[in-house]
Amino acid sequence: MAEHDLKALFRRYRIGKGGGFRLAGHDPGGKGGVDFGKAAGEAMLALGVERLSELQQLLYADGRWSVLAVFQAMDGGGKDGTIRQVMSGVNPQGVSVHAFKQPGPVELGHDFLWRIHQALPLRGQIGIFNRSHYEEVLVTRLHPELIDGQKIPGALRGDQFWKHRYQDIRAFERYLGRQGTVVLKFFLHISKEEQRQRLLARLDDPSKNWKFSPGDLKERALWDGYQDAYEEAIRQTARPKAPWFVVPADHKWFAHLVVVQAMIETLEGLSLRPPTPATRKELEQSRHALQQDT
Amino acid sequence: MAEHDLKALFRRYRIGKGGGFRLAGHDPGGKGGVDFGKAAGEAMLALGVERLSELQQLLYADGRWSVLAVFQAMDGGGKDGTIRQVMSGVNPQGVSVHAFKQPGPVELGHDFLWRIHQALPLRGQIGIFNRSHYEEVLVTRLHPELIDGQKIPGALRGDQFWKHRYQDIRAFERYLGRQGTVVLKFFLHISKEEQRQRLLARLDDPSKNWKFSPGDLKERALWDGYQDAYEEAIRQTARPKAPWFVVPADHKWFAHLVVVQAMIETLEGLSLRPPTPATRKELEQSRHALQQDT
Repeated sequence: MAEHDLKALFRRYRIGKGGGFRLAGHDPGGKGGVDFGKAAGEAMLALGVERLSELQQLLYADGRWSVLAVFQAMDGGGKDGTIRQVMSGVNPQGVSVHAFKQPGPVELGHDFLWRIHQALPLRGQIGIFNRSHYEEVLVTRLHPELIDGQKIPGALRGDQFWKHRYQDIRAFERYLGRQGTVVLKFFLHISKEEQRQRLLARLDDPSKNWKFSPGDLKERALWDGYQDAYEEAIRQTARPKAPWFVVPADHKWFAHLVVVQAMIETLEGLSLRPPTPATRKELEQSRHALQQDT
Repeated sequence: MAEHDLKALFRRYRIGKGGGFRLAGHDPGGKGGVDFGKAAGEAMLALGVERLSELQQLLYADGRWSVLAVFQAMDGGGKDGTIRQVMSGVNPQGVSVHAFKQPGPVELGHDFLWRIHQALPLRGQIGIFNRSHYEEVLVTRLHPELIDGQKIPGALRGDQFWKHRYQDIRAFERYLGRQGTVVLKFFLHISKEEQRQRLLARLDDPSKNWKFSPGDLKERALWDGYQDAYEEAIRQTARPKAPWFVVPADHKWFAHLVVVQAMIETLEGLSLRPPTPATRKELEQSRHALQQDT
């Protein structure tokens, strides 16, 4: 497949304008409508990982931009595996990964973006968020009691609460973009049946038992509500400079390929260049000095 | 002076809508147009400090709101002294004070609000910023080379750069307000002649020599540019829920009085209440248990 076609293929999953977005049109089992199999896909992934590693070196040398890749998914959606696969080739010094758990007392004592802002990557780095501020408009919509735990004054919990929260997230990401942090948001989209299979595998395979929590089934029972919450979040926050990618994730290798390709295209779009080196004359003088230094 | 009059007096310095704001109408030497002298003013200040201390206890017990008081001024404007005087009566556990210096390499590796966001007060606390994110639209406007040091990609430094920066600050403060952090911004407004006197005092009085830096005179030479930058910042960012106070500061005692009164009125407006205590029955049962525990 020509490189040009590959780009077009993966752009299909990019949502740059959220208005009117519907999740229903997105097939979790999709493979891009193109008949390349798992082996070819994995070979392409290996090439992609290599290319991403080169680009990350350049991002680091350039030292002006940073990239934030946010991963969200239902349980079993493959966030951990995707992060591991896609970032496997990249120098760890250039990457920071944060997994956001349920907030603790100190975090709840602050606004919800406080811990998010702290964890952002430095210029020159790729930052990976395994879960993110989007939990604040996903799990919290299904479990409003979590908002109670945030101790937000009652006077500030009016009709506009959720509308304002989406607006605040949009403004935050717009600000980050203006400072040089490119924000990409990946929804690893699996089907309900695929989740069932993956949760069963966690029960059947002793080496995967640790990944299973009985709470997973309670959240699974809220499946439709979660799908609605994802749809609304994408509608409200997909913007040309902070796009969502709705990644078909029933086939793990295909999901990984979409993610790596999206990151490559983003980095290639930044016109990265290393800082201007010393002049040839300066380099020659330094060479001379070192040669004399015996 | 009746309490009601006092409130009206100090509301004069509150700028809740920045549009069309002009600094020219504000007299740094003002004392509210009322003829109470320094001694009466200081007695009122002492009462105010006491009241603020009570209110801070209540803020802490309530545990939902926080207050952020930002202090900005020209050199010699009295930020340090105002913070010391106004907060003198307050339990230090309920207050966090941050003095923002020139950003270092780690801070410059992040967006400009990164260190600001980290330093915000916990719910129940009063946070004091001695300088703040406003330096990013004050000193940086007079010294654009500081922006170069932030390593923002050239592609993001177009015509809209400053407009966007004000917009981002507005959105950040709006967000904080929605989360329960009340933002107050104090510009301690002194005259150029008063600054001259105070800088001379730093040179004359050996115990104040440490406060003087030759760089102060370089900044003083940019006086008019700074006044314009303050005017523009206030225009762009004064909002009903994140007001500026343009505090006449040639008379220190009067400046302190304005600040303490503004903080008192803000806290009184929050309908603070301690958490619901245990029921009378539970309290009696606990009393009984303690009495038996010999």
